[in-house]
Amino acid sequence: MDAMGGDFGPSVIVPGALAASKACNVELILVGDEVKIQAELAKFNGELGAISVVHTTQVAEMGEKPSEILRRKKDSSIQVAFELVREGRAHGVVSAGHSGTTVACGMFILGRIAGVERPALASIIFTEKQPITLIDVGANVDCKPYHLFQFGLMADVLAKHVLGIPTPSVGLLSIGEEEGKGNLQVKEAFELFKMTNSLNFVGNIEGRDIFTGNVNVIVCDGFVGNIALKLSEGLAMSIARMIKAELKRDLISKIGGLLIKDAMRRLKRVVDYSEYGGAPLLGLKEIVVVCHGSSSAGAITSAIDMAATFIRKKANAHLIAELSANEELSRFGKAAMKL
Amino acid sequence: MDAMGGDFGPSVIVPGALAASKACNVELILVGDEVKIQAELAKFNGELGAISVVHTTQVAEMGEKPSEILRRKKDSSIQVAFELVREGRAHGVVSAGHSGTTVACGMFILGRIAGVERPALASIIFTEKQPITLIDVGANVDCKPYHLFQFGLMADVLAKHVLGIPTPSVGLLSIGEEEGKGNLQVKEAFELFKMTNSLNFVGNIEGRDIFTGNVNVIVCDGFVGNIALKLSEGLAMSIARMIKAELKRDLISKIGGLLIKDAMRRLKRVVDYSEYGGAPLLGLKEIVVVCHGSSSAGAITSAIDMAATFIRKKANAHLIAELSANEELSRFGKAAMKL
Repeated sequence: MDAMGGDFGPSVIVPGALAASKACNVELILVGDEVKIQAELAKFNGELGAISVVHTTQVAEMGEKPSEILRRKKDSSIQVAFELVREGRAHGVVSAGHSGTTVACGMFILGRIAGVERPALASIIFTEKQPITLIDVGANVDCKPYHLFQFGLMADVLAKHVLGIPTPSVGLLSIGEEEGKGNLQVKEAFELFKMTNSLNFVGNIEGRDIFTGNVNVIVCDGFVGNIALKLSEGLAMSIARMIKAELKRDLISKIGGLLIKDAMRRLKRVVDYSEYGGAPLLGLKEIVVVCHGSSSAGAITSAIDMAATFIRKKANAHLIAELSANEELSRFGKAAMKL
Repeated sequence: MDAMGGDFGPSVIVPGALAASKACNVELILVGDEVKIQAELAKFNGELGAISVVHTTQVAEMGEKPSEILRRKKDSSIQVAFELVREGRAHGVVSAGHSGTTVACGMFILGRIAGVERPALASIIFTEKQPITLIDVGANVDCKPYHLFQFGLMADVLAKHVLGIPTPSVGLLSIGEEEGKGNLQVKEAFELFKMTNSLNFVGNIEGRDIFTGNVNVIVCDGFVGNIALKLSEGLAMSIARMIKAELKRDLISKIGGLLIKDAMRRLKRVVDYSEYGGAPLLGLKEIVVVCHGSSSAGAITSAIDMAATFIRKKANAHLIAELSANEELSRFGKAAMKL
């Protein structure tokens, strides 16, 4: 665990990690400034669980380019955390640091699974019915059709083996349900999805179908996915603020507002992204889970839980099998498609 | 007005048109099956305002391809409505029919303004602060950087001259605020936006900034815009359903739910897309306003109002001027950019 990442560093990550070490039965290595980490640990009396600390002297700053950090900050907490995995001293990494740097460390320190063209970030989001997986949410902004195809295969494995959905439905995010609707990228990716036997492919789905929760895995490129994800967060917050403002406008509404507080709190718990605090970065040789920069301690705990489940279920072995079963199709997409 | 379009045809369009003819001081021509239209008109006693009917024998069906409709259904209500504009018998068209067919009729019957590469659909959406314009929301799924640039110019004219915002701020929808963030399309479009003197360009904006309402015009390609728009509609509806369900869960919440009914109704009015029922299709020689297929009569009225304002303010003349002032930049974008 990179203990220095995120907007709040050790003050949030340490308590989140402590909770995870107790709840999820994992051994945790906190990587970062030992003095700061120990100061946070000291706030918790009693048992610390299976937590150790690896001291580093550098921290990756938000403004720095990933390539600069990789080259110049060999002793940064994020880079050392990845090195621990490469050396076999840990099974995976959780990071709330800059996601570009996390992706770069994953690519260059851990390396891709053979045959994976682009690792992709999968976000597990709340919906009316059940949490669903949106992939990619920002690791790849310019994608080819066969990239989308591989994203679908990888998220299918996540949904099956980590989230426990026996036959996940997989849809392609587009602007109309019928085959043939969408941009060139989606139209060509549709062809590949149609040809595989590995997936329960349900065709195109529209923006309005995301939050109904009827489709388990939704595939798009990282540009579209990142906009969709941030738009959803922003809109949910805007609606919450607008409701609050309306409830203050007259006495009756104010009283009503007080009475519905419990109901709103229940709803907030469902919508809050901290419940699924981590976005797994799929396609690397080991598991990497990326957290929101503004993650709460609860979000950190659930991200660690996600990484632990991924490791225990040997999801990467399933991922390798599913990608390899579709190697021919991926190669066809790479060689024969226009885009 | 194509009286046969939309999910409900004359039963919704006729009352919507009647209300507009009184409220907006416009002369309306209802195009479609005269028997059906007159049957709806007969339901309203008293003065009909300045409404006339042009009879047609064909209707464009939802499943048909735009090219088929254009070639084979010369007497379809949508095609005849466009012909009336081309012949100078009307100043603009409002259609709740299939948007692909509407765009095709606009391109082939009315034609583009000289220099406009692609007409684009602008949607005026509610936000916390004020309605903003999102362009393109579905007319063009594969766009070049200079297309995005022209969309920005056209929506700026709409915001200025139809919505009455003196100096609209214009942002580019991307995945990070800093220059250089985004896919190739957005990065290159950024260069063009930076070079023009016509716009108050504020740089990239992220998905989470759309609904704060701080930026007046947001530019994206029609694939991204359509997904963003439908996702927003879907998420708002999902949240509304989830709130309703939570408020039914216990007695206190139920009572609270009754007390906040007025506040929720006020909010619904803000969020409801029928307030801005029409999406103007910009870049054609005459104004075309596209309505949601499921438009209510109120949405039809406001779409007609939008078209009338556009015509009265001579927005197309301003649009031609702004495009022509940026002709060199558009040409540079077309010739010199990679994408």
